[in-house]
Amino acid sequence: MPEQVAVVGGGSWGTTIAALAARRAPTVLWARSAELAASIARRHENADYLPGVRLPDSLRVTSDLGEAVGGAGLVLMAVPSHGFRAVLIQLAPYLPVGAAVISLAKGVEEGTDRRMSEIVGQLLPAAPTGVLTGPNLAVEVAGGHPAASVVAADDEDVARRVQSVLHGVTFRVYTSTDVIGCEVAGAAKNVIAMAAGMSDGLGFGENTRAALITRGLAELTRVGVALGGRALTFGGLAGVGDLVATCTSQRSRNRAVGVQLGEGKPLEDVLGGMRMVAEGIRTAAPLVRLAAGVGVEMPIAEQIASIVDGTTSPEAALATLMNRPARGEWGDGVVDEVLA
Amino acid sequence: MPEQVAVVGGGSWGTTIAALAARRAPTVLWARSAELAASIARRHENADYLPGVRLPDSLRVTSDLGEAVGGAGLVLMAVPSHGFRAVLIQLAPYLPVGAAVISLAKGVEEGTDRRMSEIVGQLLPAAPTGVLTGPNLAVEVAGGHPAASVVAADDEDVARRVQSVLHGVTFRVYTSTDVIGCEVAGAAKNVIAMAAGMSDGLGFGENTRAALITRGLAELTRVGVALGGRALTFGGLAGVGDLVATCTSQRSRNRAVGVQLGEGKPLEDVLGGMRMVAEGIRTAAPLVRLAAGVGVEMPIAEQIASIVDGTTSPEAALATLMNRPARGEWGDGVVDEVLA
Repeated sequence: MPEQVAVVGGGSWGTTIAALAARRAPTVLWARSAELAASIARRHENADYLPGVRLPDSLRVTSDLGEAVGGAGLVLMAVPSHGFRAVLIQLAPYLPVGAAVISLAKGVEEGTDRRMSEIVGQLLPAAPTGVLTGPNLAVEVAGGHPAASVVAADDEDVARRVQSVLHGVTFRVYTSTDVIGCEVAGAAKNVIAMAAGMSDGLGFGENTRAALITRGLAELTRVGVALGGRALTFGGLAGVGDLVATCTSQRSRNRAVGVQLGEGKPLEDVLGGMRMVAEGIRTAAPLVRLAAGVGVEMPIAEQIASIVDGTTSPEAALATLMNRPARGEWGDGVVDEVLA
Repeated sequence: MPEQVAVVGGGSWGTTIAALAARRAPTVLWARSAELAASIARRHENADYLPGVRLPDSLRVTSDLGEAVGGAGLVLMAVPSHGFRAVLIQLAPYLPVGAAVISLAKGVEEGTDRRMSEIVGQLLPAAPTGVLTGPNLAVEVAGGHPAASVVAADDEDVARRVQSVLHGVTFRVYTSTDVIGCEVAGAAKNVIAMAAGMSDGLGFGENTRAALITRGLAELTRVGVALGGRALTFGGLAGVGDLVATCTSQRSRNRAVGVQLGEGKPLEDVLGGMRMVAEGIRTAAPLVRLAAGVGVEMPIAEQIASIVDGTTSPEAALATLMNRPARGEWGDGVVDEVLA
C-alpha cells in the first residue's frame, strides 16, 4: 500500500497534482476555503481553478489541515511562496514523524530571500524536504498533454517516493538530488521571461529571444552554481525546460509583463491591469542581491531590476546588454567550476 | 589594416555575413552565378536571397573563386553541407598559405557522416579551421535585430580573428574552442526541431514542446560529449540557443515538416510541397548511427529516424517516448563524464 499523500493548496497546480497522486496512492487535497473544498468533494471538479477537469472519485478533499496531513507520508506544498511559511506553521503540529515536505512553489521568500526548502529546514528541521519543478502548466498536465518534471531532494529515496506516486504515462517525473539548483532555476527563470517578453514587445524576432534565453540560462547557471547548485540542473527540465516554456508561452504572466513594457506601457499601468503580480517583478532585485553576495554578475537580471525600480527603460536596457565587450562564451569562470 | 575576408556563398546567410564583415574589413562575396554576382555588385542588394537589405558600398562581389579567396586571410564557407566539399576542392588552388577556412554550414556530409571542419582538415590539412554557428536567421540579423553567435576553432586566435571582423552592436560573436560540440549541435538540433513540430502538429501544448526540447538537448549533449565535444557548448548559443530558436520558430523548415507529420500528412506529401529538403530528415539516420557508434542512446532521434524510414507513426513515436521507464534526470552517465 503506497503511503498517504497530502496536497496542500487547492489552486490549479495543487488540484492537478492531487488528481495525479490519487491514481496511485490515498490522497487528500487541502483547500483553504471550506466552501471550495465542499464543492470539489461534491462535484469532483475544481470549478474555481481547474474547471472542466474531472477529478478521481478516490480523491478526498478537506479544508482541515489536521485531517489533510495527519496520516500523510508525503506532504506536497502547492501554495505560493508568499504564503508558504504561514501555512507551514499552521500544519506543523499535525505532521507525522518522518513525513517529507516537498515544495511545489517557484519563488523566494520576500524579505528573507530564502528558498522554500530552506523555510522547511528552518521550521521543521527533522522533516526530509525537496522540490518538484519543471515546465508544468496545470491546464496542460491536467488535460493529459505529455509533460515532464523533476523532483529533487537531498535524500534520493525521498525523491523516489514522490516519483512513485506521480509518474505516469503522460506525466514523467525524473529524480535529482540538486535541491538548490532546482529552486534557484524555478525562481529565477521568471526574470529572464520578462526580458524575453520585452524583446518581443520591442518588435525583435526569434533570434533575439533565443539569444536572451541562452544568455539568461548562462547567468542562471552561474548564480545557481555559486549558490551550491549543479550546472547540469540548469541544462535540464528545471532550467532550460521551464525557462523555454515560460519565455515562449503566450500564457506566461512574466513574459506578458515584459511584452507590455517593451511596447512602452509604464510599469504601474501594466501592474494595474493584472489580477496577480508576476513573480519575476518581485524576484529580480533579490536575485541580483543573492548573486552579488557570491560575486556573480547577472547582466540581464540587473537590467530587469533597474526597469522595475524605474532607473532605466527597456530600450536603454537592451542597448546596455548589446554593448557589453566581446568575449569567450563561457569566459567567466563557470567552465572551471563545472569541468575542473 | 584588418585581414581580407572572403565569404563563399551568395545565399541569404552568406550575404548577411558579408555585409557585416564589410563594415570592418575588406570583404569579397563569392556567388556561384555570374548574373547574381553582377546584380549584387550593381544594386548593392541581393534581390534573389536577401531582398530589401542595402549592402555596404565597400562590399566587393564576384563569381570568380580565385578572385574571392586569392588575397583572403579568412574564408567563410556559406555553402550548404551537400555542396561543401565540391566548392572547397575548387577553391583550394587559390587559397593563400595561412588562410583560415571557417564553416557556416549546419549538417553532416551525406554518405561519409563527416562534419564540415573534418572535410576541411582532410582536403586542406594545413589550413586552420572552425565553425560559426548559433541562432541566426539571416533576415533577422540583416535587419539589425540583436542576435548572438559562437565561433569555434581549435586555435582560439583563429576564433578571435573571426570575432574581430563580425562582432558588432547588434550581432554579438562569442568565441569557443569546441569545434566538435558546435558542429554536432548545429546539425543535430534540426532532428529535435522535427519532433517539436510533430508535438505541435499533434495538438499538444507548450509543456510538451518544452519537455521535448529539454530531453532533446540531453540527448544532443550525450552524443556530443561522447564524440569529443564539451557539455557546456550544448548549454550555450550553439546548443540551447539554436535549438530553442529552431524548435519555436514559425520560419523553421524542420519544425514545419514535423508539424505536418503530426497533423497526419504522409511524409512524401510533405516533401513534395517543399522547395528545399529540411536537413533534419537527412540528419536523423546518420546521427543515430554516429551515436550508436559511441554507445549513446538517442530516443527522440531514433523515433524521428523511424518515422522518416516509414517504420513508425508520429502517434506511436510519442507513445514510445512517454513509456520509457522512470529514472534520474541525468541517470545515463553524462553526469560522470562532465563532473568527474
